[in-house]
Amino acid sequence: MDAAEFRRRGKEMVDYVADYLEKIEERPVYPDVEPGYLRSLIPTEAPVEPESYEDIMKDVERVVMPGITHWHSPNFFAYFPAASSYPAMLADMLCTAIGCIGFSWAASPACTELETIMLDWLGKMLQLPECFIAGTDGHGGGVVQGTASEATLVSLLAARCKAVRRVQTLDPKKSEAEILSKLVAYTSEQAHSSVERAALIGAVMMKKVPTDNLYGVREEMLKKMVEEDKAAGLIPFYFCATLGTTPSCAFDHIADLGPLCNQENMWMHIDAAYAGSAFICPEFRPLLNGVEYADSFNFNPHKWMLVNFDCSAMWVKKRTDIIGAFKMEPLYLKHENQESGLVTDYRHWQIPLGRRFRSLKMWFVFRMYGLQGLQAHIRKQVGLAKEFESLVRADKRFEICAPVVMGLVCFRLKGSNELNQSLLKKITKSREIHLVPCQLSGSFVLRLAICSRSTESRHIQQAWQHITQLAFELLQEHRH
Amino acid sequence: MDAAEFRRRGKEMVDYVADYLEKIEERPVYPDVEPGYLRSLIPTEAPVEPESYEDIMKDVERVVMPGITHWHSPNFFAYFPAASSYPAMLADMLCTAIGCIGFSWAASPACTELETIMLDWLGKMLQLPECFIAGTDGHGGGVVQGTASEATLVSLLAARCKAVRRVQTLDPKKSEAEILSKLVAYTSEQAHSSVERAALIGAVMMKKVPTDNLYGVREEMLKKMVEEDKAAGLIPFYFCATLGTTPSCAFDHIADLGPLCNQENMWMHIDAAYAGSAFICPEFRPLLNGVEYADSFNFNPHKWMLVNFDCSAMWVKKRTDIIGAFKMEPLYLKHENQESGLVTDYRHWQIPLGRRFRSLKMWFVFRMYGLQGLQAHIRKQVGLAKEFESLVRADKRFEICAPVVMGLVCFRLKGSNELNQSLLKKITKSREIHLVPCQLSGSFVLRLAICSRSTESRHIQQAWQHITQLAFELLQEHRH
Ligand SMILES: Cc1ncc(COP(=O)(O)O)c(C=O)c1O
Ligand SMILES: Cc1ncc(COP(=O)(O)O)c(C=O)c1O
Repeated sequence: MDAAEFRRRGKEMVDYVADYLEKIEERPVYPDVEPGYLRSLIPTEAPVEPESYEDIMKDVERVVMPGITHWHSPNFFAYFPAASSYPAMLADMLCTAIGCIGFSWAASPACTELETIMLDWLGKMLQLPECFIAGTDGHGGGVVQGTASEATLVSLLAARCKAVRRVQTLDPKKSEAEILSKLVAYTSEQAHSSVERAALIGAVMMKKVPTDNLYGVREEMLKKMVEEDKAAGLIPFYFCATLGTTPSCAFDHIADLGPLCNQENMWMHIDAAYAGSAFICPEFRPLLNGVEYADSFNFNPHKWMLVNFDCSAMWVKKRTDIIGAFKMEPLYLKHENQESGLVTDYRHWQIPLGRRFRSLKMWFVFRMYGLQGLQAHIRKQVGLAKEFESLVRADKRFEICAPVVMGLVCFRLKGSNELNQSLLKKITKSREIHLVPCQLSGSFVLRLAICSRSTESRHIQQAWQHITQLAFELLQEHRH
Repeated sequence: MDAAEFRRRGKEMVDYVADYLEKIEERPVYPDVEPGYLRSLIPTEAPVEPESYEDIMKDVERVVMPGITHWHSPNFFAYFPAASSYPAMLADMLCTAIGCIGFSWAASPACTELETIMLDWLGKMLQLPECFIAGTDGHGGGVVQGTASEATLVSLLAARCKAVRRVQTLDPKKSEAEILSKLVAYTSEQAHSSVERAALIGAVMMKKVPTDNLYGVREEMLKKMVEEDKAAGLIPFYFCATLGTTPSCAFDHIADLGPLCNQENMWMHIDAAYAGSAFICPEFRPLLNGVEYADSFNFNPHKWMLVNFDCSAMWVKKRTDIIGAFKMEPLYLKHENQESGLVTDYRHWQIPLGRRFRSLKMWFVFRMYGLQGLQAHIRKQVGLAKEFESLVRADKRFEICAPVVMGLVCFRLKGSNELNQSLLKKITKSREIHLVPCQLSGSFVLRLAICSRSTESRHIQQAWQHITQLAFELLQEHRH
């Protein structure tokens, strides 16, 4: 394929993409395929000779589309949103074409510098304290990670490194292995599985902190555990707070937890993967109060801020904490400017070496929407969640299981877990909408998250009608 | 921006991209900017109101392009290639539009299943032993990681988990901390920095194995270290072999190292990040002999197989080894089909949770090029490296510093390291071609890697003319 053919095929692809997204509602949101469906549809080996582009595009509809869960369908309400917008898609095309691998400043200065500045722009939109903004003379700054999971892992590793050094300074005879075996990290029992996984990878103990009845961690609970662990000779070193938990979008009380962590020399990381985007709206910003105590903060523009995956924004208060945990300098990655102090080499901030020019997507989205446009997007989706909440509340057979603060509604039929499992099975089977469940205080709960940019009030109304229809059938069956 | 505007802007972007790549040679390959250049070119805060698309695209040329190191310029010879092709770019557009997050089978069956099959296709192209192919009834299979660094880390963590369990089975009284402190991993002193970093993250000791005079690890050297360490009470558990080292594209002797690792219960991972692509050519396949002893194998189609970043292909012999190290199952990620055994949930195979539909890029590239087209690409680039090698060999002032096996030539002026550093400085400053150095046996060496798909013989000739011209000037200066 030469440039001329790419021009033609590229334009056809733009139309295919626009058609796909404009008519996505016509496709069943959840695919009707059995595990292994794809293997019988394509050859078992790659072709030896080139095939035609037409054949490949035909196979996109024949082979791929029947097996897609359509995350951008207005009827997709599962997990959390996967952000998508036209400006981000355009930027992504540009990013792919430039195709630079931005692991160091020299490997593409624009890739590094635009990223630093986009994180400053975004930090200011969130009203992060100055200490997180690189453009001030402070020690902090931001980086784009691939995922929140990686951000959490990076923060835990930085904290681990810092803790080991601190303990060894006080007691140089202690071996690293001995210290590691005494380190304890904490997170909410409602935290995302990636937090526990970070501890597993980092080979440190992690304890789950119980939550209050709104599923948020309170200072007292953490304090109690920390005191007990210290008394037992352990070394508390890390707390990962969640703002907007995955099951129910609950909020840990960071304004109280922060001072405790600071006092105890524990690194506080904040995982606001989903909810973080909403903090650009003044009415939600108070939930972020206490971030000034954090050592690192992360959220996913690729979830709720119209920037396509992957784009997870992370800030640290002290760049040296994170760089110190990772820095390695083979000669082929050294470059002339790196000693100047002005230069950021982002490979020291992340797990992978290579990285795409992801900040282009942020730049396009921030400018094409403007802060107002982004706020409008958040508010619209919160409004839709509230609309769904009122529908549920108006129906005596159902209950709301957690406060609806943002775009997530946790609800269930009053009755047994089995009943609700059956309801979800019916919903999944009918393929008109797609939901996933969660567990709250032992209850099996349905989660409806407002996900697609194209979800409108009518989809909420239809979804509710559909759910109540299936619930009606289910309750009839149960009566017999 | 609505779908109609996206159609228009998208088509403009396709042309912009085609223009960029067609005329990339006109741009200086290495940018002429100082650290911090970008900050003064754009506002310090995001706009409140939306801006126009025209203004953004103008800024791409004004702000971004002057700071780009053009990895796809035919005059770019630094690092290793970053793969790029039109079919991959088209697939990437589709991937972005579908925008599914494929962490589990249910989250998008096609995303998971196409990936498994593409890794089978690719594994067969490489003639990997059956035990790595998922479509057989074995226990192995492949996964797309973001980067080779992540693949190495994943393999090390799986090995660590397996080793701890093995030791605890023999001696249930040993604590995990105690075992961890005794584990030793090994890799070549020529290995990529990401290998040492994996050990740092995984909190295990890693030792560097010296190499022979062609920079490959031999069995004797590893054996000696393993014996000594065992005698000292340590537990060797992991060896990361490199096929195609970053400094000089050297090859560890895996056919001898493999049996040793198997015998010593050490996990052997093979990092063939760059060189792996060449194993689809029968003339290079012998270098992969011994892969049958490996527990995991990885290379980057995003380096040398025309699939744009990110796409790092990894295979494991026993899926359960890798899944066992990571598996966590919160309710919101469970789905109906996962108990069937037929289903792959790739989130258990990787560090991040979220993942793009990356196998689409492989599918498009494999089909549009065919195996023959891919082989032709490899052979063409190896040919260009050989061409450059003969130019160097024909000039008495220069020497070749390592065997030219694939697309990388390591060379230097006969003379001091300072002399060669000065030569590289001149090259970098003139911005006509771009190279990076490496260190071999204490010598400062220049690395010329054939990178861009658009590099032709004339670029090699010009590059050499340019280098000899600068060398001539330099030697003149030194004489005075
Ligand atoms: C609170 C929270 N943290 C972390 C994650 C993981 O996100 P990622 O896929 O970016 O790792 C999620 C995903 O839903 C989440 O809700
Ligand atoms: C041998 C080797 N291993 C690993 C890597 C790292 O690759 P990645 O950016 O995919 O982590 C490289 C990159 O050049 C390499 O040459």
